[in-house]
Amino acid sequence: MQLGMIGLGRMGANMAERLVRGGHQVVGYDPGEAAREQAAGRGIQAAASLRQLVDALAAPRAVWLMVPAGQIVDDTLAALLPLLAPGDTVIDGGNSFYKDSQRRAGELAAAGIAYVDCGTSGGVWGLSEGYSLMIGGGEAEVERLRPLFATLAPAPDSGWGRVGPSGAGHYSKMIHNGIEYGLMQAYAEGFAILQHKQEFALDLHQIAEIWRNGSVVRSWLLDLTSDALKKNPSLAGIAPYVEDSGEGRWTAAEAIALNVAAPVITLSLLERLRSRDDDSFTDKLLAAMRNQFGGHAIKQG
Amino acid sequence: MQLGMIGLGRMGANMAERLVRGGHQVVGYDPGEAAREQAAGRGIQAAASLRQLVDALAAPRAVWLMVPAGQIVDDTLAALLPLLAPGDTVIDGGNSFYKDSQRRAGELAAAGIAYVDCGTSGGVWGLSEGYSLMIGGGEAEVERLRPLFATLAPAPDSGWGRVGPSGAGHYSKMIHNGIEYGLMQAYAEGFAILQHKQEFALDLHQIAEIWRNGSVVRSWLLDLTSDALKKNPSLAGIAPYVEDSGEGRWTAAEAIALNVAAPVITLSLLERLRSRDDDSFTDKLLAAMRNQFGGHAIKQG
Amino acid sequence: MQLGMIGLGRMGANMAERLVRGGHQVVGYDPGEAAREQAAGRGIQAAASLRQLVDALAAPRAVWLMVPAGQIVDDTLAALLPLLAPGDTVIDGGNSFYKDSQRRAGELAAAGIAYVDCGTSGGVWGLSEGYSLMIGGGEAEVERLRPLFATLAPAPDSGWGRVGPSGAGHYSKMIHNGIEYGLMQAYAEGFAILQHKQEFALDLHQIAEIWRNGSVVRSWLLDLTSDALKKNPSLAGIAPYVEDSGEGRWTAAEAIALNVAAPVITLSLLERLRSRDDDSFTDKLLAAMRNQFGGHAIKQG
Amino acid sequence: MQLGMIGLGRMGANMAERLVRGGHQVVGYDPGEAAREQAAGRGIQAAASLRQLVDALAAPRAVWLMVPAGQIVDDTLAALLPLLAPGDTVIDGGNSFYKDSQRRAGELAAAGIAYVDCGTSGGVWGLSEGYSLMIGGGEAEVERLRPLFATLAPAPDSGWGRVGPSGAGHYSKMIHNGIEYGLMQAYAEGFAILQHKQEFALDLHQIAEIWRNGSVVRSWLLDLTSDALKKNPSLAGIAPYVEDSGEGRWTAAEAIALNVAAPVITLSLLERLRSRDDDSFTDKLLAAMRNQFGGHAIKQG
Repeated sequence: MQLGMIGLGRMGANMAERLVRGGHQVVGYDPGEAAREQAAGRGIQAAASLRQLVDALAAPRAVWLMVPAGQIVDDTLAALLPLLAPGDTVIDGGNSFYKDSQRRAGELAAAGIAYVDCGTSGGVWGLSEGYSLMIGGGEAEVERLRPLFATLAPAPDSGWGRVGPSGAGHYSKMIHNGIEYGLMQAYAEGFAILQHKQEFALDLHQIAEIWRNGSVVRSWLLDLTSDALKKNPSLAGIAPYVEDSGEGRWTAAEAIALNVAAPVITLSLLERLRSRDDDSFTDKLLAAMRNQFGGHAIKQG
Repeated sequence: MQLGMIGLGRMGANMAERLVRGGHQVVGYDPGEAAREQAAGRGIQAAASLRQLVDALAAPRAVWLMVPAGQIVDDTLAALLPLLAPGDTVIDGGNSFYKDSQRRAGELAAAGIAYVDCGTSGGVWGLSEGYSLMIGGGEAEVERLRPLFATLAPAPDSGWGRVGPSGAGHYSKMIHNGIEYGLMQAYAEGFAILQHKQEFALDLHQIAEIWRNGSVVRSWLLDLTSDALKKNPSLAGIAPYVEDSGEGRWTAAEAIALNVAAPVITLSLLERLRSRDDDSFTDKLLAAMRNQFGGHAIKQG
Repeated sequence: MQLGMIGLGRMGANMAERLVRGGHQVVGYDPGEAAREQAAGRGIQAAASLRQLVDALAAPRAVWLMVPAGQIVDDTLAALLPLLAPGDTVIDGGNSFYKDSQRRAGELAAAGIAYVDCGTSGGVWGLSEGYSLMIGGGEAEVERLRPLFATLAPAPDSGWGRVGPSGAGHYSKMIHNGIEYGLMQAYAEGFAILQHKQEFALDLHQIAEIWRNGSVVRSWLLDLTSDALKKNPSLAGIAPYVEDSGEGRWTAAEAIALNVAAPVITLSLLERLRSRDDDSFTDKLLAAMRNQFGGHAIKQG
Repeated sequence: MQLGMIGLGRMGANMAERLVRGGHQVVGYDPGEAAREQAAGRGIQAAASLRQLVDALAAPRAVWLMVPAGQIVDDTLAALLPLLAPGDTVIDGGNSFYKDSQRRAGELAAAGIAYVDCGTSGGVWGLSEGYSLMIGGGEAEVERLRPLFATLAPAPDSGWGRVGPSGAGHYSKMIHNGIEYGLMQAYAEGFAILQHKQEFALDLHQIAEIWRNGSVVRSWLLDLTSDALKKNPSLAGIAPYVEDSGEGRWTAAEAIALNVAAPVITLSLLERLRSRDDDSFTDKLLAAMRNQFGGHAIKQG
């Protein structure tokens, strides 16, 4: 079927290409000219403006947003809304906060436009392997878009689904990412212990490969970890600096709001904050306190 | 090749059967008569005593221990050692503490007997899918046993390997289990948040299935989680009580000994301890303290 | 000087009485008749309505709110504002969220009324020992109210201070309470370990008393803990159920918002959530997962 | 009464001087000549050898060890034992592991010599304020030494006590230090949040002073923190590097051994380990993993 894709960055362009490969017609728009040109080379019909994109689609339209979460989504919707018609559907495939998605669904509904929130996992591998899609919104709208989801997913009948009403898709994706933080931290801690056991001079890549086959801890993240350790066994040149992109914070806050103790997910987020603080005031004050009561030497900083 | 298997419990019997299916000759011993009889029905040649088992094997022998970690291993070795001859090899496939394995390797070497520590992962699924094997010991001994490892593993050339000298196999398995604790806790926390979000009435099994296909968090543990949620979506009748079997404790202690902060693995262990304490003195004292300073009401226990 | 006190609960009535003892004239209002009558018996001039309270004060007035944080503060301000005159000052001595205090200060400033946020610590002991007061607001207003703060505090020149502009007082109190959670959890865990060491049959109250004199961990919270352990050494009849009143949640969220890792304060909050969940879905799922991969027995719940 | 003090470092010399000030006769020994000379200037009778020390004391002797925990205690006991006579008592006032103290008590008992383990808290302030003493050992021996404990403690009848049999004193001190880690971490995290809230430009020393008077978080550690913040408000020149001296590790291990979840104490230890790792392999691997699945940029290290 026909789809308009707004946002032709790493994720948007790959998803558009997977749809094109699957026989769909995709009109794409991105504010960056280079992104538009690259997309054109991948079988995506590039539109020079939102208006061009909308005009190129037959009603009822399906327009997919693949832009950074936050204000950009609202700005894009504000520009897009006057161009759409009742019966059209907008899909937000990014990592929006689920309460924003609930609000936006309400706002668009008032204009007769459906809003579908679609949590999307798969990263740069989604192009070849397919994306895992958690979808929130009305049953009829999701059903109408079935051909798109079936193509984006790893297989027509698996890896995607409507999980609930508006917001439920992004909610599920948020928790997915919280879990992801915990999984990553668990692997990283384990390999760090192995790496510090100098007595055994362990080959971390070899161990990752063994674990990938038959062990309880086998997973796709372990596959990637193994690749990373193969390319760069000592992780030379990589700073111990870990970004976070928001969903972990929301997950930690949501758990507390629901009175669910989620210590491992929460702590995985805090460890990322800690990784970016190379002059910890906490630790400096601890050193100062030890000096105060015990006369313990302070290391000069 | 020929192997003696001591311990025909869930793990030992399955491993023996996988070896038999792979064309090896396995003589098995277990102190329990029922276990011996069941093994006989699975193609394993049952021995009525350690002596019978040893006598049934041609030198140089390979004897695999699949018994609970700790004193039982030492007791079994004490009984076995007088029956073996220089050139024989003993493999400990259980979850022994790596320092015990190092000590035992030294003790057996003094008698001319090789000792191989083999961390074994795969659980009840290993029979059909193969086991992941992390092996410590001398290169020659491990090489001699290659046909056994190649059969036990998921494939002849993957899922197993000699990772280092004596102790290195059990060390790697210990860390593997520490990681496993962290992974499990991350998934469990995430699903608990989903379950508490009553507003969305999420179907946890459906979400697990979506994630299994194409998502960043796909893994074998997620496959199992999905199965568990399918069978019993509300986890009815399951007590919130989580055992631990030792490796998590060793991993936490080892991380500290190496000055590696492993908060997520450590906390995953502590959460298991917490799950088994339904009358927490810590929490009772907190309630008492709040009452002391703020006059806050205490809930009667 | 003259003060109107709105809210004659445990905290408000005690603070009013301390002011009366210090020679101030306090007019008090509470929606509950019993609270008003009790206050009257403690030297506080009871007003039957907000209007009566305001009328009993000479301009420029000082009106202190000691009511639960949240909507009640806004409702009270809405009722109070039409009765006040430019030049009057409202002090919020409760545990309001600092961003609410910043907003309210702006709203009242538009009406020519000053707003002072005063974090108040001391609990039920403040009446006799004085309160610790962290104050946010304009310098002139705080200075005008000096006689009140000097009386409420443990000593005229210590235990209180203007720490910054509007919001800074409640911000400091919020962090104070976050620290309090951490301190309490540390003591409670330590005593729980002592209590579980049955081999030594330790007398927890005796140890608390020893520590209270000369040790590094001596503190007021330890004094209270010692009292609690004296009255009820085994904490019999106390449920392991720990409430939280909001500041801990705000502190955890604020730390994350500032990219400061505060694992101990955060975890102290999560432990309170955990204490109130006696049917943890997390733990049930962990038990189910262990059964799936290892065939480990599940305890019936 | 008479006492021999072995170890005239910061702690030992101060304790000896406090005893001298209290009217006791103290013979001191230290392997360092400078330490002996300084002690002589403080009213302590310096002995040039263990033999001289023992010879200077009338039987039944009391000899106090104030040396670093571990092998040095065993070495000192080995040298001391042949010089002592049945009826003498040795007190270990250092931070020995409680199981070592239990073992040593048994070894000395075989020679007719009593062994008392005395956990000592108070740091460099103990000289003036007195020490908090948690004592394990036989009732008769502890009673015989009462004059010494009464002088070392802040007051003759408080701040010290026999808490149980051999090992119980060092056990209590170990837990004391575990709590200390948690308290310190809670304060340090709280002040770090305040310091990062640039909007309010808070004066941390001022806030510490306010809290010291009347607040729930007042404590001796807060007094010291306030001093540290007064001397160096920005903690300039202090490295964010925090040592640990062993008791925190033992406490964490002991809690696990007793199946008590002590997350805050444990995490406080892990944060210290983390403070000393400025090239975290864990964080490098996390960054590498993010790059693998999402193409997220890696910061060069």
